[in-house]
Amino acid sequence: MAETRRLGTLLFPDFELLDVCGPLEVLGVLPDHFEVVLVAEGGGAVRSFQGQSLVADHDLDECPPLDVLLVPGGLGTRREVENEPLLAWLREHAQAATLVMTVCTGSGLLARSGALDGRRATSNKRAFDWAASQGPNVEWIRRARWIDDGKFVTSSGVSAGIDMTLHVVAREIGREVAEEAAWRIEYTWHRDADVDPFVEPRR
Amino acid sequence: MAETRRLGTLLFPDFELLDVCGPLEVLGVLPDHFEVVLVAEGGGAVRSFQGQSLVADHDLDECPPLDVLLVPGGLGTRREVENEPLLAWLREHAQAATLVMTVCTGSGLLARSGALDGRRATSNKRAFDWAASQGPNVEWIRRARWIDDGKFVTSSGVSAGIDMTLHVVAREIGREVAEEAAWRIEYTWHRDADVDPFVEPRR
Repeated sequence: MAETRRLGTLLFPDFELLDVCGPLEVLGVLPDHFEVVLVAEGGGAVRSFQGQSLVADHDLDECPPLDVLLVPGGLGTRREVENEPLLAWLREHAQAATLVMTVCTGSGLLARSGALDGRRATSNKRAFDWAASQGPNVEWIRRARWIDDGKFVTSSGVSAGIDMTLHVVAREIGREVAEEAAWRIEYTWHRDADVDPFVEPRR
Repeated sequence: MAETRRLGTLLFPDFELLDVCGPLEVLGVLPDHFEVVLVAEGGGAVRSFQGQSLVADHDLDECPPLDVLLVPGGLGTRREVENEPLLAWLREHAQAATLVMTVCTGSGLLARSGALDGRRATSNKRAFDWAASQGPNVEWIRRARWIDDGKFVTSSGVSAGIDMTLHVVAREIGREVAEEAAWRIEYTWHRDADVDPFVEPRR
């Protein structure tokens, strides 16, 4: 019997919709492995940058212990890097978790909390310099679909979060479960973290 | 100046999260072209099959006129094909709209309403026979990432909805806008509707 781990996904105003819903599409159908909860300052409905709102299960202050933490990106990160209570929450929960994942500029937000200090990480290619500037003590790697640094797994922009999540499923549960999950959602999984088609300028 | 079209996305309990959030990730950043609203019986928060809830903007009965209709799939379609008021709503709004898109088993639900009669359509490969059984007067095409039948554009499973949406953006707005949208979300767009890696059994 698999051990079910509680995965907390942080929401904030103007989070990027697919940064959250890509990974959760994959993880949401593995209930033996992951119990997914959404967490946001103040709880309740939180509006994405795209305009649709997801409903948070918990306020930051009443969040149950998390085994896994998922931090999305989106334009809202530009505001949240100035949000000291949120940064303190991130520091605390990133330390307590056994696995921390970020998508897109979520790595910039997490880096600003200090939690990525001394770690290797990547981010969205369009906002890479901004993300990198949030964590001067992080080893930033530009060319990567995702970076697996053990406890911390960070992905490139938006859709790369799906590839990273499938990698985490393969690593933590098994390759076959990840392949089946990708097939179920008819997703062509980019299995190689080193192949990054978006690092070059668009032709 | 582009004409903004109102796009209504139907929600129902146990909709597939990415069927909705994939297309809306693309369309949600084209506000000059699409005003996106979420519609559901009773309005309010609607729980996806993955467990996370999106917040509907309108009840079915108070839905404003829609130029474009998006119907997702998910296990909830199995229940909704018996929901006569919903089927009547779909028939009416599919007729009134100038463009109707479905993702995954959303085509089965729409077919059950009769709106796809005489049209070419596709669906999820895992639930293809079920979807096809909902519309005996539809020309069902199994091998397709999506089917463009003019007013009705239907996609294969889950992730295929992103490819279909990019195709619709290219068709309705312009190829360059679609290419830029795909790049922005670091998504490797499957540009060829006839290439369908998921129609064969998984190796």
